[in-house]
Order: sequence, then structure tokens, then C-alpha cells
Amino acid sequence: MHADTVQPLESSVDLAHRNASRAAGLVTPALRATVDTFDNRIRPIVAYHFGWMDTSGRPTANSGGKMIRAALTILAAEACGGDARQAVPGAAAVELVHNFSLLHDDVMDRDLERRGRPTVWSKFGTPAAILAGDILLARACGMFDEASGHQGWATKALIDAIAELAAGQMADLALERRATVTLEEALTVSEQKTAALLRCACTLGAGLVGAPDGTSRRFGAFGMHLGMAFQLVDDVLGIWGDPAVTGKPVRSDLHNKKKSIPVVAALHSGRPGSAELAALYADTDPMTEDGARRAAELVELAGGRAWTESEIERHRGLAVAQLDALGLTEAQRAPLLALADYVAFRKH
Amino acid sequence: MHADTVQPLESSVDLAHRNASRAAGLVTPALRATVDTFDNRIRPIVAYHFGWMDTSGRPTANSGGKMIRAALTILAAEACGGDARQAVPGAAAVELVHNFSLLHDDVMDRDLERRGRPTVWSKFGTPAAILAGDILLARACGMFDEASGHQGWATKALIDAIAELAAGQMADLALERRATVTLEEALTVSEQKTAALLRCACTLGAGLVGAPDGTSRRFGAFGMHLGMAFQLVDDVLGIWGDPAVTGKPVRSDLHNKKKSIPVVAALHSGRPGSAELAALYADTDPMTEDGARRAAELVELAGGRAWTESEIERHRGLAVAQLDALGLTEAQRAPLLALADYVAFRKH
Repeated sequence: MHADTVQPLESSVDLAHRNASRAAGLVTPALRATVDTFDNRIRPIVAYHFGWMDTSGRPTANSGGKMIRAALTILAAEACGGDARQAVPGAAAVELVHNFSLLHDDVMDRDLERRGRPTVWSKFGTPAAILAGDILLARACGMFDEASGHQGWATKALIDAIAELAAGQMADLALERRATVTLEEALTVSEQKTAALLRCACTLGAGLVGAPDGTSRRFGAFGMHLGMAFQLVDDVLGIWGDPAVTGKPVRSDLHNKKKSIPVVAALHSGRPGSAELAALYADTDPMTEDGARRAAELVELAGGRAWTESEIERHRGLAVAQLDALGLTEAQRAPLLALADYVAFRKH
Repeated sequence: MHADTVQPLESSVDLAHRNASRAAGLVTPALRATVDTFDNRIRPIVAYHFGWMDTSGRPTANSGGKMIRAALTILAAEACGGDARQAVPGAAAVELVHNFSLLHDDVMDRDLERRGRPTVWSKFGTPAAILAGDILLARACGMFDEASGHQGWATKALIDAIAELAAGQMADLALERRATVTLEEALTVSEQKTAALLRCACTLGAGLVGAPDGTSRRFGAFGMHLGMAFQLVDDVLGIWGDPAVTGKPVRSDLHNKKKSIPVVAALHSGRPGSAELAALYADTDPMTEDGARRAAELVELAGGRAWTESEIERHRGLAVAQLDALGLTEAQRAPLLALADYVAFRKH
């Protein structure tokens, strides 16, 4: 390569990927060190869940998820001018909590697949998945009492996020059984199940490098709005995502009659398509292929897609506004902005 | 009552009951305050589990278990000359952990009854029981980061006990599926599933009132031996307990072909009865009434009962030896001794 080769500007997606990989590189040793302390019977199960091992205990190429949460913690710490290494316990803790909730949610939802592989409960049994989740949860809570000194506020922030996750999952299960769900109820579930932990990830990143409370809270608000955008994008992809990119069946949320945000928004819009969509969802028979295709059209017709996409843009804007209010330099701001763009515009 | 009425000396059982009630009186408000912070959907389920409410949310006469663990924490704190109120977060934390593990274990074991009432999963569903357990676990871990200031060593002790509980439950489930279990393996499960948390209860009680590390560790050893005695008594009662007193079906552990300590000891004794007992357990048909009666005789014949009872006595002795080594006054020693006697000699 010649010195005068023109280098294209790094795209925001590339920057986000690069930072997510860098964060994963920082936090993975901490995660592995934690998992290494687990009991012999639980360790291989957790290692399988993280994608570090196959079912027979052989190492695999790591497929352990996007680590968006760890990346947020690391980037928030760096945006505060701090040393990312100080934020690693926080990044590890949020990933442990995220994975505890995946393990337990998969049990409750009886989901068979996660990250393209059989879920832990379907492979090792429900007790193994419950206990593996329990131990991840407990060790996450202990992450701030290690050698680095106690940081009780951090433990408290994490536990509050866990309480929100649990409340959100409880509400989600209750709403799935109900015929009518308001948009507010559905949005609260998204806030509890997704946004709360992303808020926590950012709060921890800032706080662990010594940012003042007000600054940490603002980073937390950034994370919260990003979390809402993240979940809303998930909901859009659950209907219109390309199976070749998402790895999920086409229109999977409609096949499962999931009351995701676009569906609930459409049902409450009172516009053409609402009533027909309600009837399709009320049918006690399973959703057919034709039904799901029609439901997707109806959600769009009734404005559910447009509403959700405008909400994604609104939350992305509110997230960016938090960064603006923090008065960051362009260099501090760029990685977080790139992550926000990646979240809002991703295809999987 | 006349002033000159001769008061009989309080029996050790009465003293143990009185102290357990007193501990329950101290810790219950802290438990209720914690549960009051829970989400609307989870709170009534946890309140039902603790025996504070019936399934329709009406208050009930408290039937929330013996609170042996909370009593140990309080009594250890007092035996150190400390103020019991300082140990209340520790007592509450161990009760939260104990109840988290009951909620999750009942899901895994598919047990239908707990404290004479339907288990949470059988009444409210598996997801409710998993989530209620998760939130108890998380809040227990946060108990030492509250207003009283962080006590990271206490959080760490608690989380280590949780890790042992999880490892013990995992091992227990694995051993249940195996044809042969060594006595050492079965004893390790008892240590992890029961003794670890009783050790933690005592360590916390001493540590929270500022006892030196060596003293806390010795109180922990007291709790550990008491925990072993507690579990071994449970195992004896699971075979020979009086259903009218235990509230469990007669010979329930034998009906379930549970590999409890007396059974495993009998199977490995190589004495008359061992082989016939092994054959009864190996039979793929469910245990009959006659089979269970015969199995109880065989466990006794093969020395499983005698071995277990001598172990109970040995652990009680080792527990008392810890108290002796602490050089406590008679007044400091008596309540813990009474609890040890109660545990070793209880009928339910």
C-alpha cells in the first residue's frame, strides 16, 4: 500500500463495529475469569451459552452476541476522559446480567434457539438453565466488591436494572395473555426489558471513571433512549427483517402473534387495517403464512410501521441530544454517535 | 401470679423457640420493607410465598417458615456482644437467599407443596416463580449497599454461599439420575445446599457487629456444623419422621427413592440389607407402600440410621466445640447452644 493511498473516511457502522470488537476484547477476559470460578458442572453450560464451547466442551469460534451493552459501558467511560480498564467490571456486570436474563427468559418463553444454536434449557434441561442464570446474576452483583474496592452505588444501579428486567418480563408474560394492550403498557415493557439495562451500562461506564452524578445520569439517559431505539428496531425487524440477515424466520413476531410495538400501534391507530388486524390476532387458530403476510400489510396500512420508525428517530435524536448537552469534544462524541446510528439503522 | 411462684428453668427447646421468634420479629419488618419495593405483579407472589398473604392477596397469619437462618445471624451478633439491629441486613439477606432457592428448587424438582401450601410455580406458573426468585436473589445481594454503608465482604460472603447453593442443587440433580452415589458426594451436596448458607448466616452476624475475621470464621464453622446436623436430621425425618409432626407423607424420601444420607450410608455399608436395598432402589417401577416400609427397615439394618445419627451427634459436638473455643460467657453461649440442641433433636 502506498503512503498516498486515499483512505476513505471510516463509516459509522465500521466505527461502531470496531468499538464493539474492542470492548468485547476488553471485557471477554473478565467474563471468562468470572466463569472460570464456577462449579465444574455449571461452567461448561455457561461457556456453551456464551458461545465459547460446543456442547461437548470443545472451544468454538466465539459467537457470543453483539456485546452492545459492554461497548456502551466502555465508550461512556472513555467519553468521560477515563481509562476504559476501570469500567471493565461494569461492562462485565451488564453482560452477565444480560445473559442471565436470556437464560431465564428462554426457559419461560420455551424458545428453542438463541444466536443460531439450541438454547441452554433445550440442550441441558430447565434446571441447568435456571441455575446457570442464578449464578450469573449473583456474580454480576458481586462484581463491584472485588479487589478494586466497593462501589455500592454501582451494585445498586445494577440491582435496580435487574428489578426492572424482572418486572418487564413479568409484565410481558401478562400482556401476552391479554386481548387488549395499550401502547403505553407495551412501551413500558420495552423500557423495562431493554432500555433499563442499556441505561445502566452507560451510567456505570461514566460513574466507574469518577464522573459526577449529573454526568452519569445524562449518560444513563443517552443509554435509555438508545435502548428504546434498539428495542423498536428489533420490533421492526421482527416483522420486516430479512431472514437472510436477521437469522430469524420471516415475519416471526406475527407468526407468534406477538404484541410488539408496531402491532400495538397499528391496533390502536383507528385507521384502515386496524380492525382486520385485530380479527387476525383474535383468531384462536395459529397464524397461517398468508395471515402473517396480510398482518404485515395491515400493520403498515394502519400506520404501525411509520409510528414505530418515527419513534426510533425520536429516541435516536433524544440520545444524541444528551451527548450534545454533555459538551463532549468531537473525538469523545463520535464513537457514541456511531453506536447510536448503528443501533437505529441496523438490519439485524 | 404470685411473686413466689417457682418458675421452672426454661428448656433448651423453649429458649430456641423464643430466640427464633425474637429474630423473626427483628427481621420480618426488613423483609417486608424489601418486598414492598417490588413491582406490583411480583409483590403479591412473593408475599404469598412468605406466607404473608393468600393467593387472592388477603393477609394471613404468618406461616413463613422457621427462620433458623435469621436466628443464627442475630444470635451470632449478640454472642459477639453486638447490637442485633446491626445484623438485621445480614439476617434479612440470608432469608431472602433461602427463599430464592426454595422458589427455584421447587420449579426444578416440580414439588407441589411447601410449608403446607401449594408452591408458587404450581399456583402462579413457572415464570412467576423464576422471576420472584430472581428478584429475591438480586435484592439479597444489594442488602449491604444500603444506607448503612457498603460492606463488600458481606456481599462477597453471601454470593459465595449462593454459588454453593447453585452448585449443590446442580450436583443433587445429577446424582439423582445416577445409579451409584458415594457417601462423600452425598455429603458434599448437603454441605453446599444447606450448611453453606447456615455458615454464611453466622459469619454475617459476627462480622456485621465488627467481630475480627478469626472470630467470624469460627462462628461460620459453628454454622457449618450446625447446618450439616440440620440436613442430616432432615434426612432422618424424611424416613422415620412422624407425618403428624413433620407435615410430610410417611417415609416420603423412600417413596421418592431419594438418595438421602441414611440411604447412601446403608448402600455403602456392605452389611446385611445393603444388597436388598440396592435392588429396591434399582427397580424401575415406583416404590410401593410395602417397598418403602421394607426399605426403611433395610436402611436401619444396614446401619444407615445409626451412622447418620452418629454424624448428627458428631457435627453437634463440633459446633459446640467452636463455641467453646470462642471463650464465650455462659449468657452468650446459651442461646446458640439451645439452637444447636433444637436443630439436633427436633422432630420436624
